[in-house]
Amino acid sequence: MNELDKKFQKLGVDNAPGQNTATKGESPNNANILVDFSHGDVDAFEPIPESLNTFIEGVNLGGEQAYTEYKGDGIIRKVVAEKLEYFTNTDIDYLSEMIITPGTQGALFLAIGSLVTKNDKVAIIEPDYFANRKIVEFLEANIISIELDYLNTKTGAGLNFNKLEEVFKTGVKLFIFSNPNNPTGAIYSEVEIKEIAKLAKKYNVNVIIDQLYSRLLYENNDFTHFCALDKELYENIVTITGPSKTESLSGYRLGVAFGSARIIERMEKLQAIVSLRAGGYNQSVLKLWFAEPEHWLEDRIKKHQLIRDEIISKFKEVEDLVKVRTTEAGSYLFPEVLRLNINIKEFVEKLRYQENVIVTPGTEFGPQFTNSFRINFSQDYENTVEAINRIIRVIKECSS
Amino acid sequence: MNELDKKFQKLGVDNAPGQNTATKGESPNNANILVDFSHGDVDAFEPIPESLNTFIEGVNLGGEQAYTEYKGDGIIRKVVAEKLEYFTNTDIDYLSEMIITPGTQGALFLAIGSLVTKNDKVAIIEPDYFANRKIVEFLEANIISIELDYLNTKTGAGLNFNKLEEVFKTGVKLFIFSNPNNPTGAIYSEVEIKEIAKLAKKYNVNVIIDQLYSRLLYENNDFTHFCALDKELYENIVTITGPSKTESLSGYRLGVAFGSARIIERMEKLQAIVSLRAGGYNQSVLKLWFAEPEHWLEDRIKKHQLIRDEIISKFKEVEDLVKVRTTEAGSYLFPEVLRLNINIKEFVEKLRYQENVIVTPGTEFGPQFTNSFRINFSQDYENTVEAINRIIRVIKECSS
Repeated sequence: MNELDKKFQKLGVDNAPGQNTATKGESPNNANILVDFSHGDVDAFEPIPESLNTFIEGVNLGGEQAYTEYKGDGIIRKVVAEKLEYFTNTDIDYLSEMIITPGTQGALFLAIGSLVTKNDKVAIIEPDYFANRKIVEFLEANIISIELDYLNTKTGAGLNFNKLEEVFKTGVKLFIFSNPNNPTGAIYSEVEIKEIAKLAKKYNVNVIIDQLYSRLLYENNDFTHFCALDKELYENIVTITGPSKTESLSGYRLGVAFGSARIIERMEKLQAIVSLRAGGYNQSVLKLWFAEPEHWLEDRIKKHQLIRDEIISKFKEVEDLVKVRTTEAGSYLFPEVLRLNINIKEFVEKLRYQENVIVTPGTEFGPQFTNSFRINFSQDYENTVEAINRIIRVIKECSS
Repeated sequence: MNELDKKFQKLGVDNAPGQNTATKGESPNNANILVDFSHGDVDAFEPIPESLNTFIEGVNLGGEQAYTEYKGDGIIRKVVAEKLEYFTNTDIDYLSEMIITPGTQGALFLAIGSLVTKNDKVAIIEPDYFANRKIVEFLEANIISIELDYLNTKTGAGLNFNKLEEVFKTGVKLFIFSNPNNPTGAIYSEVEIKEIAKLAKKYNVNVIIDQLYSRLLYENNDFTHFCALDKELYENIVTITGPSKTESLSGYRLGVAFGSARIIERMEKLQAIVSLRAGGYNQSVLKLWFAEPEHWLEDRIKKHQLIRDEIISKFKEVEDLVKVRTTEAGSYLFPEVLRLNINIKEFVEKLRYQENVIVTPGTEFGPQFTNSFRINFSQDYENTVEAINRIIRVIKECSS
């Protein structure tokens, strides 16, 4: 097996969100309604109102909108940059410090691809979004992982500062993390964010922060925007976000990255050979982002919070079997089955074929999470409650 | 300057199609209408009728269409594969041998990224689509170029078989070429295609063929589909195409790749970390491809042919100054200014600022094309004729 074969062997997609449809044909007759917790349900939580009409306006602009600059249409970048400046309390020059990408996945690939090459060291949190690790592996860079003590931490995400410094000292070029954390829904505290900034500066480490879920905050939780901390640090950081999750615009494939002009310039060069640009007409839809109808976001948060609370209360009833941290932001939960007596792959398949429930195995987020699974609870309330009952039944069945 | 800096220095985007809008602000007051020959004008040649309505049907399908498999929605893949089977006279298993990508650019990146890694040798035609070279450079593989004698060849594109074999002998892993050739509009003859196949087999070389323009054939020119030649060879080849050019669907960012199941599987894994999928709703629009209204394609070809003929006849009037091969397929022309007395960058800028005409410098297609430029004549007829007059005026001005 050559180097390329090995590289692609690591790049599995079987457990990835949305990917389970690949096995739809094999699904058994099942009296239960299929609940796919691997990603949010945009039929239960619909896209921002007027999304389609705004897309149509883009089509009606014709060639001008079809062939935007690679980094995205200038007018739309200006509109979005202003919203993000206000949201994050950061200055963003839309001409040089922002790029529109095909989804936040696109932004993540371009950002990592702009900052590391073969054999570079990259620090990654575990658990964290699985594509971080896979992109680094595709680029043949080396991963150094930092485990998050998310289950035993009350304030913050559970970052160990000594471990972080130890890792930065080894000469890492890049640190990647999501805030709120995917898959746990933990928010990094201000103290944690400032410590990351301090160490990134001290060791001259580039930082990519994925803030995809930073609008969906429960109980008005505090959220510290890393990018707003320090203008000097700003040259080495890129923040990634987009309207695919909270705003349910995933079908339009839109993301943005903002930050260092040096990194954004490279990302545009890379986008030119990877996909040219986010769909030209699609970009129009970004005009609605952060400009939703009054109370739209509050309402969305409230509805998600109800679902979260119901799931948490159900898991609490079996707390001798399952441990879970309450989501502080976003729509993910990452329960750990304490005494799982089958392996996680079998557990996930049992849920899939016996209960018609799709979850993502913990091992996608770090090899050590062999007893955990992720659910995205941005779903229909009733269906979710039903499905959680089925999950708990399987947990009981499979606990020793 | 470190390795990564060097890599990104090579990845320029300034002369890329559509990218000139980045300098729009600097454009002078100019009495002439802007004609952007760097890409087709989708206002002059509009998208396939009902494209937008078909997109809307996709949106109305909701979550199912938003979250397709990474390689694209199964039903749409099936529909498209059947059309492509008929068009190319090839068997295509839509389950494993085809992927939908964000544009053909997306397909090209995924295909090359699936086949080569650092220090591998890649054979590339010159002139050929500029992104081929750039992707190979990003992957830190090595380019071995094969020059096409397109100006002096009557039948075929002008491929030198001895040179091709000599290059293949050096141990290249991959050969990439576009047919019809971009930027010259030359079609490879059946003899040439068979020779490529013979040598690819002999030296076990993977082949990526970009057939983006293979529907827009003038005068019923013959076109040999490489993929249809040899089932055994099929395991090592990927054909790339899409509806962005002839069908003017560029704003929807859609492409497809079909061929070797081994390569397509890798491409899907790579797509999972690069952009997840082509826009879910956008994919719906592919249902119209190869299913256009009766005579729609013939009419489109006829109109392009009129423009081509007019441009060629104008260049023939100054054949002591400019040499050009008549386009056999697609909408590109690649004229060579025989006695250009300024450099190509200055020439292109003169056209831009003095004449309000955008063309792509020849050096994007190979470093040796210092006297050539590419135009995409998929434009409004009247505007094109006017703009060609302005180009010829500048050629006269700048010829010694």
